[in-house]
Formats: sequence, structure tokens, C-alpha cells
Amino acid sequence: MLAAAGRLLLRDGLPAVTFDRVAAEAGASRTTLYKWWPSPGALAAEAYFARSERELAFPDTGDLRADLISQLGAFVRWLMDEGAQQPMAELIGAAQLDPDLARAWSQTYAQPRRELARVRLRAAQQRGQLRDDADLDVIVDQLWGACYHRLLVLRVPFDDSIVEPLVDHALHGAAPRT
Amino acid sequence: MLAAAGRLLLRDGLPAVTFDRVAAEAGASRTTLYKWWPSPGALAAEAYFARSERELAFPDTGDLRADLISQLGAFVRWLMDEGAQQPMAELIGAAQLDPDLARAWSQTYAQPRRELARVRLRAAQQRGQLRDDADLDVIVDQLWGACYHRLLVLRVPFDDSIVEPLVDHALHGAAPRT
Repeated sequence: MLAAAGRLLLRDGLPAVTFDRVAAEAGASRTTLYKWWPSPGALAAEAYFARSERELAFPDTGDLRADLISQLGAFVRWLMDEGAQQPMAELIGAAQLDPDLARAWSQTYAQPRRELARVRLRAAQQRGQLRDDADLDVIVDQLWGACYHRLLVLRVPFDDSIVEPLVDHALHGAAPRT
Repeated sequence: MLAAAGRLLLRDGLPAVTFDRVAAEAGASRTTLYKWWPSPGALAAEAYFARSERELAFPDTGDLRADLISQLGAFVRWLMDEGAQQPMAELIGAAQLDPDLARAWSQTYAQPRRELARVRLRAAQQRGQLRDDADLDVIVDQLWGACYHRLLVLRVPFDDSIVEPLVDHALHGAAPRT
């Protein structure tokens, strides 16, 4: 059912994720869907997480800069080339106007993904590749949050050429090296 | 009319910004409103910019870190204490589902505000307070974009204690100083 909802979401957008259409696509009964998800929006948010999980895995080769470039590059391509930009914008947009969807999005997608990033960053910090006093949540805001900012707030297009500057700024900052 | 629309927006949220209510609040005719704005959403976006202009001015004391902390602190207080969080989220949320509002928001609020930030950052760069190869748009993403990320995407509360870590990460990064 999650896979069916994910296919509908990526192909036809958030309005396509209704219990009727997911039931038909999955060959399941609507009753089952009602039992597991409080709303189509909650199902869509969980399907978005499930659908993105493989694409957005965090590598750990020991080289933090290379791993961040690789993961953030996959995130940008997931949005720009694999069709996730529109459903992502629809989910986050609708969440601003619908508290139940907001909760589902935050709890089943956004915060779990942040936790995956924290795990990778914490491993780097323990190896001395990030400062002891670095704020891992701020690093998450300054990498993935920056992409959301361009798409949702500024609404300016970008491509994966943004990835290296984002990572280098997050690691080394913008001030002159003294 | 902009002031009246801004008052309605901050007090009652985006649904309150209709041509009828703005005309009544401003003592103007609806015809005049129709002449100047293509839609209530476009009026709301411009009113949000006008209403925030004074609160979110960019100081230039010559001390870049202090000025960024001061401006970003004003931005966080504008959102959290002065009632802008809800209308901002409604505007950006609705923009994801409404291309006309998206254009109005981006062109009359988000991109002009980014340009104001660029002007201040460019002055700092010319004085050697930012590296020559620093990407000013990335700095904007990593300061103001980070706040939008927490509010709109993660949906986790924060307060102005986030400001100094954001500025210090943007200036100096998270990697150990070598």
C-alpha cells in the first residue's frame, strides 16, 4: 500500500493520493487503509518517506566531505530529476494549512530524515572531523534546509552545482581563513 | 491600502486579506484595489514586505558578525513574537498550490529581501570580511533559509538562541580549525 501510494504521489501529485485510488492501485480494501492511516495526507507523507529511503541513504566511507556531497547530490537529483519536487512542495504547502498533515509530515518524514543525517554527522564528530562544539542540527539546516529555501521560499531553480558550495560553506564558513 | 492589508494579515491571517475587507479597512474602493493588484494573494505578499521593511532593515556598523546577529535576531522576533509566523506560513503554503501567489511572493517579498541581504554581504566582502570566493546566496540560504527550514519543513519551535550558532556556523563552518 505504501509502494502504491508512493507511485501515485510521484506520478500524479498529492491530489491523486486518495484512499480510493490507493486501494485500487494496491489491490487492497479501503477498510484496511482506514485502519492504518488517519487520512490520505498521513499516508502520502509516509509513502514519500518510504519511496525516498533507498535514494537518500547516507553513505559512510569515512570521508565526510565526499559523503555529504554524495548524499546531498542524491537529494537534489531526487527533487529535480526524479519527480519529487512537485509532491514535496504540495505536501509541505498543504501542511501549512492542515495541522494533521503537518504532524504527519514532520513525524513520518522530516524529523526521521533529520535523525538519519544526525547519525552520520555524529559519527564524523566522534572521529574529530567536525568540531566538538559544532551544532549538528544547524548543519542539517544549512545543507538540506538551504535547498528547501530555494525551492519553497525563493522559488528559484537550481541544479546539483549547488551541492559543493553548500557543503564547503557548511564545513569551512564564509569568513577569511585566519 | 498596503498598511490596511498588512494589519489584516498580521492580525487575522491570510484568509482575512480579501479585497472587500481591505477596502473597508482602508476606506478605499474595491475598484482601486482591482486596478492595482491582480489578486488578494498578490496584495498580501506585497503588504507582508511593506510591513516587515522597517523591522527587518540591515544595519551596517562595520562589524559583520554583530550586524548579522542583529538582523537575524530581528527576523526571528518578527516571526516568533510579532505575529508573522502564521501569515508567513500561510503565504508560503498557499504559494505551493497557487502559481500566481507563488510569483507574487517570490517577486515582491522573497527575492527583494534576498537582494537586501546581498547588498550587506557584498559590502562585507569588499572590505575583506568575507572570502573573495564566498557564495553570497549560499550565506543567505544558510542564515534565513535555516529558519524557514525549522518552521516550514521540520516544524520544530525555536527562539533567538538559534541566531548566534547560525551566524557562527555561516562564518566559520563546522570543521575543526586547522
